[in-house]
Amino acid sequence: MNWEDLAKELSIQTDSKIVLLVIDGLGGVPIQGKTELEAANIRHLDRLTLNACCGVTDPVLMGITPGSGPAHLALFGYDPLRYELGRGILEALGSDVEVREGDLVARGNFATLKAGLITDRRAGRIPTSECERLCALLNQALSGQKDPEIALFAGKEHRFVVRFRASGLSDALTDADPQKDHKPPTPTTPLAPAAAKAAGIVNRFIEDATKILKDERMANTTLLRGFSVQPSIPRMQELYKLRPAAIANYPMYKGLACLLGMKAYKVGAQTSDLFDTLEAHYLEHDFFYVHYKKTDAAGEDGNFEAKVRAIEEIDAFIPRLESLKPDVLVITSDHSTPSLLKGHSWHPNPFLLVSPTALPDATGVFTERECAQGLLGRFRALYAMSLMLAHAGKLKKYGA
Amino acid sequence: MNWEDLAKELSIQTDSKIVLLVIDGLGGVPIQGKTELEAANIRHLDRLTLNACCGVTDPVLMGITPGSGPAHLALFGYDPLRYELGRGILEALGSDVEVREGDLVARGNFATLKAGLITDRRAGRIPTSECERLCALLNQALSGQKDPEIALFAGKEHRFVVRFRASGLSDALTDADPQKDHKPPTPTTPLAPAAAKAAGIVNRFIEDATKILKDERMANTTLLRGFSVQPSIPRMQELYKLRPAAIANYPMYKGLACLLGMKAYKVGAQTSDLFDTLEAHYLEHDFFYVHYKKTDAAGEDGNFEAKVRAIEEIDAFIPRLESLKPDVLVITSDHSTPSLLKGHSWHPNPFLLVSPTALPDATGVFTERECAQGLLGRFRALYAMSLMLAHAGKLKKYGA
Repeated sequence: MNWEDLAKELSIQTDSKIVLLVIDGLGGVPIQGKTELEAANIRHLDRLTLNACCGVTDPVLMGITPGSGPAHLALFGYDPLRYELGRGILEALGSDVEVREGDLVARGNFATLKAGLITDRRAGRIPTSECERLCALLNQALSGQKDPEIALFAGKEHRFVVRFRASGLSDALTDADPQKDHKPPTPTTPLAPAAAKAAGIVNRFIEDATKILKDERMANTTLLRGFSVQPSIPRMQELYKLRPAAIANYPMYKGLACLLGMKAYKVGAQTSDLFDTLEAHYLEHDFFYVHYKKTDAAGEDGNFEAKVRAIEEIDAFIPRLESLKPDVLVITSDHSTPSLLKGHSWHPNPFLLVSPTALPDATGVFTERECAQGLLGRFRALYAMSLMLAHAGKLKKYGA
Repeated sequence: MNWEDLAKELSIQTDSKIVLLVIDGLGGVPIQGKTELEAANIRHLDRLTLNACCGVTDPVLMGITPGSGPAHLALFGYDPLRYELGRGILEALGSDVEVREGDLVARGNFATLKAGLITDRRAGRIPTSECERLCALLNQALSGQKDPEIALFAGKEHRFVVRFRASGLSDALTDADPQKDHKPPTPTTPLAPAAAKAAGIVNRFIEDATKILKDERMANTTLLRGFSVQPSIPRMQELYKLRPAAIANYPMYKGLACLLGMKAYKVGAQTSDLFDTLEAHYLEHDFFYVHYKKTDAAGEDGNFEAKVRAIEEIDAFIPRLESLKPDVLVITSDHSTPSLLKGHSWHPNPFLLVSPTALPDATGVFTERECAQGLLGRFRALYAMSLMLAHAGKLKKYGA
């Protein structure tokens, strides 16, 4: 029996409450001897560790650097090696595009076609306003079509998301993208007989778009890649009998949470908005995923100081979490984003669990190195969910 | 998706260099309070730990004592429970016998046949020189045959390796060995229809050998077991996009390394030869497996003092490794060989990783007990490879 079957069998609905605060990209590696977390002044998080059980988690496997999708799936108890989310669906979620069952989505580029060759896969990185104008133009021109309904959603510069809404669309399609400049356009081809209809629709769209854009100087065709339908993934209600809520203000995280059955609230851009929303809806749910993004953004920028300040900013809100007195409070990260590496990394995440049934350890400060010495040891992030459910009294005994 | 598929998808070729020093059988259990590693004076290894991230690894699973084959497979990222190397292939590799695709090899014993019964499965443990004479005799007598070509390679005392070279040979064969004295000879039987040809060839060889040896007093027949063809195993080039080299002076380790696609250099018997060879070929590869055998040999002999001296000997060469400035340096073992047990054991291996992207821990001396407190924690040796690749910048992000 795997963990998901076990969860379905053992989980029970109770009134106890779980709060999971994800401080995105929290972990780091030292610059001048200290990580960002070690350099930050975080008296509330440090105080929490005194009654907490700590550890570190590997998002996927040791040494594997995850994208945000796989890293979050693991935290919610979904094996990221089993559930692979296509680029198209993540781009769509990240662009706040609604994706229903049956929809086919893809990441698009505006590109330049000259004398039968793609001469610039990014159409000279047209300004975002141009991208918005072209998406509106195509949406208008294609608005008469019903099977499929086609909608484009502008992203930054040359990027967009396209959504095909029709019945019987499969995502077993090759990328309609030559991948390199100075090659001819590449139509998509179906990877399975069931994808023939989708391939026809996609290739007709590219032809139509190229006709509509024929007078544009740079952005006169489109390339599409990462075709995805809504993935088949069990909801958290079904697996864990939870009434889960997502408190996040970035579209990708809200979108992913929705896929898993969470109610994603509209949240303002300020850090305080996260806690206002949590408090406003605290009676309505029994699982709260709260997502804080600034730490990851600073790490991606390679800005050690900004990451330290972001950690100190979230620390100031910890008393508001405590005053809710959740039965289980977990504070951790989805993946590390060391400023030194200016990107996601494979380093394990610090993990802190507070609950009346936790066995507190000797950890006195909340850092990567102290957590690694904690009583929870090193474990796959996949098991964060079973730990939280257990401490919340939401898992029955296995076997007699 | 499993780790190997993941490795294929995520690995990238770069110029960064990984050096993996395997101190064979390094781990021990205490005699008079100290393990061999704790008793040894190893100032270079101890100094390395100050900037290293340490841990301990289980070669297979907790409590499982591995042979050298499975233990090394794990270190190179091959699940030893998935890839089983037959005894015949390991004996052949250990005897420096070349095994090509299609070859069938087996471990052989000279034995005594009297009145239709095997009266001594080891032919009175004939001297090695006798074994060499008999192998030469059989090779001479069988040299006219072409399908199969048969070659015997003498081992110690009554032991030899036999290689059958023909097309269409399967190793789905039972042992041609009654396992106990005073039983009749047991021909091999095919375990699958595809092995019928191989069974015929093996049984005819035993008959022919028994005729040729009929005038020998003790060694007048042969028993064969552990039939193996070259295992189907992906090469490290394919899995990791590495250009790997093996610096080892014992045939078994070189043979195993060749199976995985490494270039195995000819290395002299002195410890300094390992480092001379490493330095001579340092520009040609990006992954170096360096194998030091003396620690294991001393442990197998139950010689605590000799094992301490062997550890101190390799310690003196550590500065030569450091001066190469590899991007990732790992020093560990394949398995433990405690002098107390005079053999391999299941105890986990000390593991030390030095890299600019490592998070150094508080470990200040290189011992089993200190490493067990290290930041890497306890992990399956299978993940040593993903860690090394990650720290060398040779793995892309998983998912978006």
